[in-house]
Parts: sequence; structure tokens; C-alpha cells
Amino acid sequence: MEREQVVNIRLDESTDEVVILDQSLLPGAERYLRLGGAEEMREAIASLRVRGAPAIGIFAAYAVYALSSRSRAGSYGEFYSQFQKNKAYLGSSRPTAVNLGKMLDRMDALVRGMASREIPEIVGAMRAEAKAIHGEDIDMCKAISEYGLTLVRQGDGILTHCNAGQLATSRYGTGLGPILLARERGIELRVYCDETRPLLQGARLTAYELLGAGVDTTLICDNMASIVMREGKIDACFVGCDRVARNGDAANKIGTSGVAILAKHYGIPFYVFCPSSTIDPDCATGEDIVIELRAPEEIREMFFAKPTAPEGVKCYNPAFDVTDNSLITAIVTEKGICRAPYAESFGRLGLLR
Amino acid sequence: MEREQVVNIRLDESTDEVVILDQSLLPGAERYLRLGGAEEMREAIASLRVRGAPAIGIFAAYAVYALSSRSRAGSYGEFYSQFQKNKAYLGSSRPTAVNLGKMLDRMDALVRGMASREIPEIVGAMRAEAKAIHGEDIDMCKAISEYGLTLVRQGDGILTHCNAGQLATSRYGTGLGPILLARERGIELRVYCDETRPLLQGARLTAYELLGAGVDTTLICDNMASIVMREGKIDACFVGCDRVARNGDAANKIGTSGVAILAKHYGIPFYVFCPSSTIDPDCATGEDIVIELRAPEEIREMFFAKPTAPEGVKCYNPAFDVTDNSLITAIVTEKGICRAPYAESFGRLGLLR
Repeated sequence: MEREQVVNIRLDESTDEVVILDQSLLPGAERYLRLGGAEEMREAIASLRVRGAPAIGIFAAYAVYALSSRSRAGSYGEFYSQFQKNKAYLGSSRPTAVNLGKMLDRMDALVRGMASREIPEIVGAMRAEAKAIHGEDIDMCKAISEYGLTLVRQGDGILTHCNAGQLATSRYGTGLGPILLARERGIELRVYCDETRPLLQGARLTAYELLGAGVDTTLICDNMASIVMREGKIDACFVGCDRVARNGDAANKIGTSGVAILAKHYGIPFYVFCPSSTIDPDCATGEDIVIELRAPEEIREMFFAKPTAPEGVKCYNPAFDVTDNSLITAIVTEKGICRAPYAESFGRLGLLR
Repeated sequence: MEREQVVNIRLDESTDEVVILDQSLLPGAERYLRLGGAEEMREAIASLRVRGAPAIGIFAAYAVYALSSRSRAGSYGEFYSQFQKNKAYLGSSRPTAVNLGKMLDRMDALVRGMASREIPEIVGAMRAEAKAIHGEDIDMCKAISEYGLTLVRQGDGILTHCNAGQLATSRYGTGLGPILLARERGIELRVYCDETRPLLQGARLTAYELLGAGVDTTLICDNMASIVMREGKIDACFVGCDRVARNGDAANKIGTSGVAILAKHYGIPFYVFCPSSTIDPDCATGEDIVIELRAPEEIREMFFAKPTAPEGVKCYNPAFDVTDNSLITAIVTEKGICRAPYAESFGRLGLLR
């Protein structure tokens, strides 16, 4: 059952198209999409064909490059105006993850810094920057995974929520990174992945990645987290993250805060894994993080053979929640492991610039 | 959208068949089944066509009567031997709820007490006893609902888990009883019902019942309980129960203990509603309660248009969990409201006999 490393995002340099594995179809089908237009790129983010905070950042950098490469602008002013339009359009696809905006801002800074250059030169630099963002993500995931590996021991049971694996990043992943690296190093872990309603990223993506890597994997429903903790099956919880406030409050997939509260109740460590770029210095606490509300159909219809709830029932469908810093044992970045008080710990590692 | 009271179980006295509303098809179809044979009766319990601890007890009483009414036994010995076989067969369908065994035991005691009587007379007494069990459940639910009503105020937000409504009992329900009674009395509550994976009793049944009664109802996924509590939407949690130990530990639908831990974290009262027959004096603590493990397909296939998890992934699927008595604000029975220490409180109300 072990398989080759999945490549979730790549640039086809011959056509300047962004090629993605359509994650909305996993695990039933492995279909790749070639995206060249702004509308289909934005739709790919909004419809979760590409998802996971770091992966969205990588994708957005390639996407805004690919759109710029198609520009027929006759002047820098026109070129930059088109860039800004594309940036705003892609950037409006999802509000909660910090990486999308950050990587678009990074591309923006590059373009603004080259106002006196020829357009082909700017486009070439954008391609190099997008590839650098991708390469940095691979290094970042590896470093996070190495730090994370110091937190586990042979035979440990790990609970995961949502998907913070290679599909959500580039290689290894953040929350799943230590698990996949452990597997490479011969350290056997027992992983309980919760299915993560409503979009089932745990069942569809995490179980797919872990099983493919040969990891001992058991799927549970979200509401079974308490019983597996109570029964002593879990030694630590590993999750990714979409945005971290200065004080360590962390926004991640809906349900994460619930897992953290259960872990605290049962005395189990709860670890958040994320690139340092996920820490938002402009965000004082979790109260400042905008939570995306998604469509009711995701709860009552999507994935089901027929609707599971009566017609007309209201649904409340927040895509993320905020986990209070007091519930987080440590936040693991590529620069090191941070512990409370987080503002100090982040500052010491230079993560609040 | 308001509708007539649903009748989930009844005896057709002209044919001695038990007629049930097939809850496994709700809310898509309202189909009634007429059951006369032991195999289809046991299957109806095991496949959750009839479900909810009190409803299973009522059904089992009617079922074992209906089977006895078909007996061609020539002697009491033969009749009782058939009864015992039917009792054991029906009783083996689900292990966790106490009511199934208790109601079968009650029918057994009746039959044993009539060893010197003619078989038709015994059968007549069994029918009366089963109808009495049903009638007592209606009175019990009404009493629980009245006690529960003292715990809510106009405008309160209530979180429910699974289904403890009229479908799970006879009328009103246990956990939903106070909500439905409040509606009758013009007290408006806002109810958040979690969908309750894997079998979606919250989405399929609770939302169906509450919407039908005109209650302000919002469906959430199980993992959204934390965010709605954090956002101040919830003033109390109302759940039913399948078995209560002497010390107040309570087994209920998987995920209940998680909701209770979240409620404690956020300082929200957590109420368990059950008939006093749910309290098992033979059970010292929750450790003594057998938790039913169900099929993996319920997690990865059932209800879905196609499997949601990769083939071959292990699934862990406990149907219930135990909520520690320290997490329960009160246990509401038809005899009154019990609070910790529960053994004393139960004893004072005479519930441990």
C-alpha cells in the first residue's frame, strides 16, 4: 500500500500553468488539474481543490506569477495594475489563513521593487520567487518535522485533526510531518485521525497520506476523541494551524479548540505545528482573527447520497475556530519549539517581525 | 412546517404485529414497518430502525408479547421455554442501554408469576403489561419534561447531542422533552443540535422533530460544539442517557462525554435526562458499563454517496461513551432532579432499589 510521494502543486514551466492534485476528489480519484486563468485559480482555493494554509500560499505565488506571465501590458504601470487586480481577486478567496495574503504580499513587494525594470525581467524574477517560496516550504516542513520528532517516542498514540500533511504543504507537512519522518526513521507510531466534519479532510486526506506511507492509522469520528483519550490510546495531539496571534492563540480547522480542551482535561499534550510565517504580528489575540463561514450545504448535503437533515433546517458552518493559548502545550515552528508565554517565546526566536 | 405528533411504536391489536416508524430512513422517508417475526424484530433494534433507550424497552415488551401471542405451546413449560428463547434473542441485539434488559425482565417476572394459569390468560396479561410499560413511559416523559422546564428561561440557547426526543421514547422525549414542552407553553428556546456522527441522529431525527414542532433549530457538526459555546450561544446542554451507574457516571451516545468536558470548560451546565429505570443499581461506576462497538462501515461508507476514507483504513467505532459524574450538573428523572453526590441523591428519591 505504500506509494510514491504525492506532488500536490507544481508549475509547468513550458505552459506557465499551475498543476494541482484536486484534493476535493480524494481518496476516490487522483485527478490533476492544469490551471491558467484567474477564475479557475480562485475557484480552486475557494472549493478546496488546493487547501492547507502553506499549500495555498505556494499555490497563490505560482498563480499570480502565471497570470502575470500572460500579461500583454505595455508599461510597468499597466502591468502592476493588472498584478494588483489579480492579487486582490485571488486574495479574496479565503479569509482565515495568513499564508495566502503573506505570499501575495511577498510577490507584491518584489514587483514594486522592480518598477524600473523591463516586464520580462520582472516576470522572470516572479517565477524565481514563487519557486523559492515552494523550496522554502519544503525546508521549513523538514525542520518542523525534525523538531516535532523530539516530542514522540516509539509506540506513542497520536491524535490528528484535519489534514496538515504534504497535501497541505509541500513535503512531510506540518502536523503530520513528524509522523511521516518518524516512519522514515523506523519509529512506529499509532495514529488516530479524526474524520473532521464537514469536509472530511481527516478521513479523505490524512488517512490517505498516512496509509500510503505505511503508518498504523485508525479513523474515528470527531466525537470519538474523548473516548480514545479516556481509554489511554493517545499520548499527544498534533495539529496544523492557519493563523497564530502574538499571544499564541491559534486559528485552525473547526473543532481544533474542542480537541485541545479534551486534551487538557485528560492531561495529554497538545501541539500546534506551523511555519513561522503563520504567526501574524498584526494580530494581538484570537479575537482579531476573522473566521470564515461556509455554506450550509457542506453540513447537510455534501458527500451524502441524499440530504441528511430536514429541508429548511438552519446550519451554522464556521470553517475554523480559535484555540486559546492556555490550551496549547507548544507551538512548533521551523525555527524552534515555542512555549508559553508565547509572545516572549516568539520574540526570542525573532518571529514577530 | 409544524406537524402532528409522530407515533414511533404501536401495537396493532388486530394482528398482534408491532408497527414502527423506520427511523433509519428519516428524514427522507416516513415509512412504517409491521413486524411479526423474531428475526425482523431483532434486526429492527440492531439496525436502529427503532432506537433510543426507552423506545427500545417499549418495543421489546411489545415484541416479546407479540411473539408469545403466536405460541402454539401445549404446556406452560413449553410456553416459558419459548419465551426465554425470544427474550434472550431480542436481548442480545444491543448491549449498552439498560431499558432493553429491564423491560424484558419485567415481562419475564410477569410470566413466571403466572405459571399456574392458562396460556391465553398469560398472553392477555403480557399485552396489558406491555401497554402499561408504554403508558408509563408517556407519563415518565411528561414528568421529566416538567422538571426540565424549571432549568430553562425564555431565549436560552440549548445544545443537544444525538436524539432523546419522542422518537427515542413515546411522547415529548427525555432530553428534548423540556424543549418541546417549552414550545407548547410559549417559551422560545434556540436549539443547536449537533449532527451526531456516525449515524447522524442529531441531523436526521432531532432536527426533524424540533423543526416539526416549530422550534428555532440550528444544525452544527459535532466538532462545532466548542465554538458555539465560546461564542456565548449556549446556556445549557441537554442529553439523554442509556445507562447510569450508582455513582452517576452516565453512558450515552458516543461524543456525550466530549460535550460535557467542553461545557465544564466554558462553565455551562450539562444536564442528563432519563427515566429512573435507566439507573442501574448493579453498576457501581461507568467502568462496569459495556460499550457496544459497531461496524467500521458506519464511519467510512454509510450515508455517503461513495466511501469517504481510503480502502483498508482501520476504523474504531464505539457507539457510546461514559460521562464522568463530575462533569454532570444534574440528572433529571421523572422522580426529581438529582445532583452530586449522586448515590445519595438517587437514594433519597428511592431510585437504587
